[in-house]
Amino acid sequence: MWDVAEELKAMLVFAEHRYYGKSLPFGSNSFKDSRHLNFLTSEQALADFAELIKYLKRTIPGAENQPVIALGGSYGGMLAAWFRMKFPHLVVGALAASAPIWQFDDIVPCGVFMEIVTTDYRKSGPNCSECIRRSWDAINRIAGNGTGLPWLSETLHLCTPLKNTQDVQSLKDWISETWINLAMVDYPYESNFLQPLPAWPIKVVCQYLKDPSVSDPQLLQNIFQALNVYYNYTGQARCLNMSETSTSSLGSLGWSYQACTEMVMPVCTNGINDMFEPHSWDLEEFSDYCFRQWGVRPRPSWITTLYGGKNISSHTNIIFSNGDLDPWSGGGVTKDITDTLVAIIIPEGAHHLDLRANNAFDPTTVLLARSMEVRYMKQWIRDFYASLRKKY
Amino acid sequence: MWDVAEELKAMLVFAEHRYYGKSLPFGSNSFKDSRHLNFLTSEQALADFAELIKYLKRTIPGAENQPVIALGGSYGGMLAAWFRMKFPHLVVGALAASAPIWQFDDIVPCGVFMEIVTTDYRKSGPNCSECIRRSWDAINRIAGNGTGLPWLSETLHLCTPLKNTQDVQSLKDWISETWINLAMVDYPYESNFLQPLPAWPIKVVCQYLKDPSVSDPQLLQNIFQALNVYYNYTGQARCLNMSETSTSSLGSLGWSYQACTEMVMPVCTNGINDMFEPHSWDLEEFSDYCFRQWGVRPRPSWITTLYGGKNISSHTNIIFSNGDLDPWSGGGVTKDITDTLVAIIIPEGAHHLDLRANNAFDPTTVLLARSMEVRYMKQWIRDFYASLRKKY
Repeated sequence: MWDVAEELKAMLVFAEHRYYGKSLPFGSNSFKDSRHLNFLTSEQALADFAELIKYLKRTIPGAENQPVIALGGSYGGMLAAWFRMKFPHLVVGALAASAPIWQFDDIVPCGVFMEIVTTDYRKSGPNCSECIRRSWDAINRIAGNGTGLPWLSETLHLCTPLKNTQDVQSLKDWISETWINLAMVDYPYESNFLQPLPAWPIKVVCQYLKDPSVSDPQLLQNIFQALNVYYNYTGQARCLNMSETSTSSLGSLGWSYQACTEMVMPVCTNGINDMFEPHSWDLEEFSDYCFRQWGVRPRPSWITTLYGGKNISSHTNIIFSNGDLDPWSGGGVTKDITDTLVAIIIPEGAHHLDLRANNAFDPTTVLLARSMEVRYMKQWIRDFYASLRKKY
Repeated sequence: MWDVAEELKAMLVFAEHRYYGKSLPFGSNSFKDSRHLNFLTSEQALADFAELIKYLKRTIPGAENQPVIALGGSYGGMLAAWFRMKFPHLVVGALAASAPIWQFDDIVPCGVFMEIVTTDYRKSGPNCSECIRRSWDAINRIAGNGTGLPWLSETLHLCTPLKNTQDVQSLKDWISETWINLAMVDYPYESNFLQPLPAWPIKVVCQYLKDPSVSDPQLLQNIFQALNVYYNYTGQARCLNMSETSTSSLGSLGWSYQACTEMVMPVCTNGINDMFEPHSWDLEEFSDYCFRQWGVRPRPSWITTLYGGKNISSHTNIIFSNGDLDPWSGGGVTKDITDTLVAIIIPEGAHHLDLRANNAFDPTTVLLARSMEVRYMKQWIRDFYASLRKKY
């Protein structure tokens, strides 16, 4: 965005979503109870952006008659797309990077997400995904032994030792989340989005996961080496902290609430098409969790009702970009819907690689994607001025 | 709609807006305080309609893959237009009859509404609007006399006698509202929308208001005869009740709250281009009134921010119909915006005449309007099926 803004002589505005960062509507009480959380919705966020744009246009000299483009990645990409859908009078178009707007309801199969994660590992090293697939039972077997828990805690260098079966489940969830996060940030160069990481981190991980036929203890030692790539690339960590997952700085509290209300994105595994323990998508279980956690129950169909689900062809000027490595691409728009609702695919791309700054190691496909995106934006801007001229 | 539904083999669904009629979300507490009223917004109403349509499609056999059209008049017409703008995936088009979607902010001059009212009276009888213009000062002069208030109360057959200057203002407001309402329901045949009324009621009113040069008492006696057309066409009323204005059955309580929050529609008079006492639009005064009445203050620009104001050309398939006699046409869309955002004018039409049942006294222009409306609807339906066929 910094590179492109200069080319387009554009002003960049980063709007902070309410309930994230410093935008707390009730200060330290903002997460106190569901009453205080009532204003944490995607609709409210879009309304904030609308007010912000009008405010900027009113107060910044020369801004009044300028075209605005919405850009975002991930949830921010969904918001960018939805903003163009709901406020087409305020933005001439939107770039929705890695925006899984179809990962709702039953629009895409819930298994697709973890299948893409698995593919990333399968392609990043021989037997890599197979090693991970076998690791779960290895953990279960070791945990079943008398000295299994302390052994696992020590072998994996956990900061807090495992105490019971529930902790073992947490361990497996935490490892799964790590593999998922690595799939999202499998960038072609050193980066620091969720964690400081080497280039193509999954390839690095997979160097430790080559032989699925080793003994359970050896497999777990290898898993530790692999996890260490993610949690200790800098070499500073003395132990691995299961409670600190990578995404806490992105506002996991707010997202947890949103996932329990509007943003219900079904994910499931079967252990066959993916390398994870089988777990079906259970809305009732999830709903009970949400009720315990937040005192609310999810409305899994609301996003589809509000934003149209697959039926969005009457909108215009939205670019949906997706990287094939990104698990979220499974719920994204990966084929053109119309001439002006277009899909851009980045075969070597992970989660919104196209939004990152230019890098010497960028694959050609992302350079191409960025140049297409700029071309569309320039077209929107031209169309905007053409329609202005027609008006006066 | 009944006539057209049969032709289109359509199901008619009348959705009741929350906080109106029996749709009270907190029962008898619904209007208790601003906290209970928080859910009375146009957005919430649109969301209700979205849920309703999805529910009907899910539960009524055969409804699933049928196209839906939104229809409405007045505020309902605005909702129909806005629903197509915000939920184009749920309705293939909208007929927005007499929907003053531009009577907000400073999109149209605030004087236009009362100018149209005035024109209706000016064209309905010689000197008619001039008699009304003079009546205000006549009331003021008579009210200034020692015996003025009892004389006025008796002459106008008021159920409750006037007691003070404030009552005189209420009287003038009530008379003004009567003239406005008559302009809205100036239909070409006997009708009973706001009140039981004769055909072309303003013409009947104007038969009593021909000579503006009569004495003040005579002018007020004539005004009484004119008011009597509106309040006592059936001859049953023993006195005229200032507190019972015509529109109470339409849910004036809910509308009063909405006018004090989102639906701020500026109206003003100058006594020159219109026949009323001069009254400028004073947002601050209005805001204070709203705060006293409801404990809220209006957000006069929100509707424009949310629904686009004049900048709506990216939407499609909305018919805006307006009658030239209707004061609300001043804030309506009366020129085509694009090929699919079209305006239909009914020169002899009052407030959403086109939505009323066919009548032998319908002017040709409303018949033409209705047939054009049906033609557009059929086109939307054809387009819907064509795009379905393309999909499968």
